[in-house]
Amino acid sequence: MTANVPAEVGMSVTEVDTPCLLVDLDALDRNIATLAAFAHEHHVRLRPHAKSHKSPDIAARQIARGAVGLCCQTVSEAEAMVAGGARDVLVSNEVVAPRMIARLAALAKQARVLVCVDDVSSVAALDAAAAAVDAHIDVLVEIDVGAGRCGIAPGEPACALARRIADTSHLRFAGLQAYHGPAQHLRDHAARRATIDQAIALTRDTVERLAIRGLHCEIVAGAGTGSFDIEAVSALYNELQCGSYIFMDADYARVRGVDGGALPFEHSLFLQTRVISKTRPGRAVCDAGLKSHSVDSGLPVVFDYDDIRYTGASDEHGQLDDPHDHLALGDTLRLVPGHCDPTVNLHDWLVACRDDRVIALWPVAARGMSR
Amino acid sequence: MTANVPAEVGMSVTEVDTPCLLVDLDALDRNIATLAAFAHEHHVRLRPHAKSHKSPDIAARQIARGAVGLCCQTVSEAEAMVAGGARDVLVSNEVVAPRMIARLAALAKQARVLVCVDDVSSVAALDAAAAAVDAHIDVLVEIDVGAGRCGIAPGEPACALARRIADTSHLRFAGLQAYHGPAQHLRDHAARRATIDQAIALTRDTVERLAIRGLHCEIVAGAGTGSFDIEAVSALYNELQCGSYIFMDADYARVRGVDGGALPFEHSLFLQTRVISKTRPGRAVCDAGLKSHSVDSGLPVVFDYDDIRYTGASDEHGQLDDPHDHLALGDTLRLVPGHCDPTVNLHDWLVACRDDRVIALWPVAARGMSR
Repeated sequence: MTANVPAEVGMSVTEVDTPCLLVDLDALDRNIATLAAFAHEHHVRLRPHAKSHKSPDIAARQIARGAVGLCCQTVSEAEAMVAGGARDVLVSNEVVAPRMIARLAALAKQARVLVCVDDVSSVAALDAAAAAVDAHIDVLVEIDVGAGRCGIAPGEPACALARRIADTSHLRFAGLQAYHGPAQHLRDHAARRATIDQAIALTRDTVERLAIRGLHCEIVAGAGTGSFDIEAVSALYNELQCGSYIFMDADYARVRGVDGGALPFEHSLFLQTRVISKTRPGRAVCDAGLKSHSVDSGLPVVFDYDDIRYTGASDEHGQLDDPHDHLALGDTLRLVPGHCDPTVNLHDWLVACRDDRVIALWPVAARGMSR
Repeated sequence: MTANVPAEVGMSVTEVDTPCLLVDLDALDRNIATLAAFAHEHHVRLRPHAKSHKSPDIAARQIARGAVGLCCQTVSEAEAMVAGGARDVLVSNEVVAPRMIARLAALAKQARVLVCVDDVSSVAALDAAAAAVDAHIDVLVEIDVGAGRCGIAPGEPACALARRIADTSHLRFAGLQAYHGPAQHLRDHAARRATIDQAIALTRDTVERLAIRGLHCEIVAGAGTGSFDIEAVSALYNELQCGSYIFMDADYARVRGVDGGALPFEHSLFLQTRVISKTRPGRAVCDAGLKSHSVDSGLPVVFDYDDIRYTGASDEHGQLDDPHDHLALGDTLRLVPGHCDPTVNLHDWLVACRDDRVIALWPVAARGMSR
């Protein structure tokens, strides 16, 4: 069986096998530089989320521009990133299964490992697993700042949990995880500000209560691509966890910035697709379907033509409305995925390009690492 | 980096790493037997679609019960299935890119290969590629029987294309591909019957026109899990291409059979997930999100509890409504995926189980083979 490598270095992008993810290297590097400069200017650390790209090559570029480490969302994703060179990884999620806790502890022998906890029962399990291999794990208490997903209640419940962590032998209380996911996607900046301001208030109260108990938050973490400019000026959050800024999907392109304009990042990830059937005027069928991009946040947007629309996805096909019949059989075009994170997770390779030439092939090393 | 194998043979299903796909081996084998018996009884061949399972192990079970070969949807999927032992594979789709046409021709040196064509420009390219490696490829003319996706117009245009194929040196005209995808998902059997009856009429007319020109259709192929009972009694279609019957997803469970009841297949594929956060009464958060199942055809259905609902997916999380608080932190439960095909494509392993024990680990060998 072939490794199904979609391209060769030096090839023109129109020659790569389709469907295939292309990364515009210059746009990617500008996105990295823009957020790095912002974090530097606002004296906050940047720990970008690797769940968006799952690529050690991209992680290395983020670290080279000043990121202090990475976020991952699962243990296996963290393993893949450490295997790819990462030395400081936060699993920004709860780890509950005994087999996974043991793997997390083993990983803490190879790199600095941090993890989130929102239930006291996890504390003893994590401590025992770390002790069993003589590792140390840094732990953030995840608080629910309004997202209604994971996280213990802010305030006293969070303080009690932090105390339990601090009292263990092989865990260290390192601070708070206070991320508001749904706020990232509110279209209007003022609405995001109002929601994040509430999150900041809850977090600040918890940090102050912890301080009274002698529990210092080295890390107060959260913020995504939609809200990082708000947390960054809170004088409270000190680590930003943006992920999607690296690629910018069609959904985030609809999120307005502080001035009502676009967020300060460019599309750098494209799904290259090809017309495989052209039997009727005004329509075409391409090879980009549900198995090469995720439609959970809306359909992809055609990047190369203003007047062509992607109107429907089946498993291996995409329907295109092409009223002026630009497209002929075999033609390629680029789509901006509706949602980058689950789209990247469908691919084994990122094809890095510059000036329409293939520059490098980057493995999506943490593809499928959902455990 | 670990291979991320989620289980060991002999383990209890509650111990497997989550999220993870479980296959109920007995239900799977009953589904295979049910459709095999139906095809035998109705004197039609069965060429099940491997795009649903992407597993050589499951393909072997289908072949052992009488399937004449497999359908695949892409060249790389076909390569994976041939590498896994398949000897007769139809790529039930158009192959247009020169690199992919060359790979298809190379594959035809290892197995019987069939492919669909809906444009005359593909004929010369396929013939040249087959000639270059001294291979022969069987070709079906794909006709659009109302689905509005791929396929040349039935009748005279299809006949002209078939003639061009028959006149080549290394291609053989083998018949018609006449599949109606959207009809599979019409909820009401009578509505499906009306749509498929129209497809049958168009196909019959084309077969008759071809016969007048001395072009015999060895294969008249189509039919999916929602409509196979209609094509099977057409005295026209002779190969059924059902795929989803093997697993039955939540979407197909909503499709009614001829008597208004369920289709004659059982759920055999489950996404095993685990509660990773339980901080509020009536709610829980599990580890099954957009990266382990596809929501394009609706949310998954909770299989183990009648009164728990899966209400929302983010990348690595699922929200559960659990009004009676059955679930505790760390508990596992099984979900019936909303849409099996793209869900399987997210996983590297199928964990085959019987009586809640792990019996075998099957690689999803064609996972990600979307080119």
